[in-house]
Amino acid sequence: MSSPITELGSKPAEAPGTRCIILATAERLFREIGYRKTTVADIAKSLRMSSANVYRYFESKKAINEAVAERLMAEMEADLASIASRSSLPPAERFREFVRALNRHSTERFTTERRMHEMVEVAMTESWDVVHRHIARIDDMLCHLVADGARSGEFQVKDPMVAARCVHAALIRFCHPALIVQCAEEPGPDLDQMISFLLRGLGNSRTP
Amino acid sequence: MSSPITELGSKPAEAPGTRCIILATAERLFREIGYRKTTVADIAKSLRMSSANVYRYFESKKAINEAVAERLMAEMEADLASIASRSSLPPAERFREFVRALNRHSTERFTTERRMHEMVEVAMTESWDVVHRHIARIDDMLCHLVADGARSGEFQVKDPMVAARCVHAALIRFCHPALIVQCAEEPGPDLDQMISFLLRGLGNSRTP
Repeated sequence: MSSPITELGSKPAEAPGTRCIILATAERLFREIGYRKTTVADIAKSLRMSSANVYRYFESKKAINEAVAERLMAEMEADLASIASRSSLPPAERFREFVRALNRHSTERFTTERRMHEMVEVAMTESWDVVHRHIARIDDMLCHLVADGARSGEFQVKDPMVAARCVHAALIRFCHPALIVQCAEEPGPDLDQMISFLLRGLGNSRTP
Repeated sequence: MSSPITELGSKPAEAPGTRCIILATAERLFREIGYRKTTVADIAKSLRMSSANVYRYFESKKAINEAVAERLMAEMEADLASIASRSSLPPAERFREFVRALNRHSTERFTTERRMHEMVEVAMTESWDVVHRHIARIDDMLCHLVADGARSGEFQVKDPMVAARCVHAALIRFCHPALIVQCAEEPGPDLDQMISFLLRGLGNSRTP
């Protein structure tokens, strides 16, 4: 009989894909029957394994939620990073594309799919660290984009990180899952009006 | 015996202050024991009247909540309106004062007083019309202030209402009760950084 330490230590070599399969199954069940209704036993049953085996990879349902949320965010971040680094586009254009993609991903992933929204809401209340890291990565991408624009003279900013955080905070209405739902019916600027306003805030004098 | 119509019709003349006294008592109880725990019977008992009498003035607890919320918002709006119309200050300075007051009121009223926060949360879910009208009134004040700045040449904006709504949307983090709490620990711009960024968005070239 192997000791618990050996078991833990040998996990990745033993079954490199199990963690990934558990996550994919959990995500499918969250989508199909909702986050709150899905139990660790449901996930195990779908995979014809014991709950104990699932717990070898994730210590709790919260840990599964966090990993699923991280994965969804990673997909979204990969797309955003590719836009932010598209040096063929001038920074102001890249900024427009970036913000539109941020809004599109947030709306599609977290609000159009109502059942996933439930998972996101739980993540936002219980797993603030995961959300926090995601926000920090978006801040970093925006900071690089703003710094690019400052170097090319398209933007006039003293501190790119402060500017990036102002932009991101100003966009909460367009990327915070609960606010997208809450503000949908409310009069307010549309996304393009907001982008133009933010570009002026970044000192982009050519913004119409 | 008077008909229900006569009763309704004679209400204001009969007891001009009763509505007001019910509201003051409800507000005190919401503050002391919380919105959810306060019943219409509690309010009636405090006033030594019957619940039926309270229901003559407010058809439901929700209606009482709405009236209390309206009153709190009216106090806040009166202060903001006095700042917005302070023509002795240049528009950019007035804008700074206005946004600081908006943040201060939102933080004090709706988050520092945790029990009132509960009432506000319920109002924001169930009485969206009340909140909506409040948002529209703040938009109007901001619009006037921005238009003043555009006339004096301090701001460069084409459509003051669009600019006002962009500003207000950008400030959600600093005036939305739930977000003030949720974002308190999160890295982000501080209020003065955000105000400076928004002033640049308004075309205020003298903003440092």
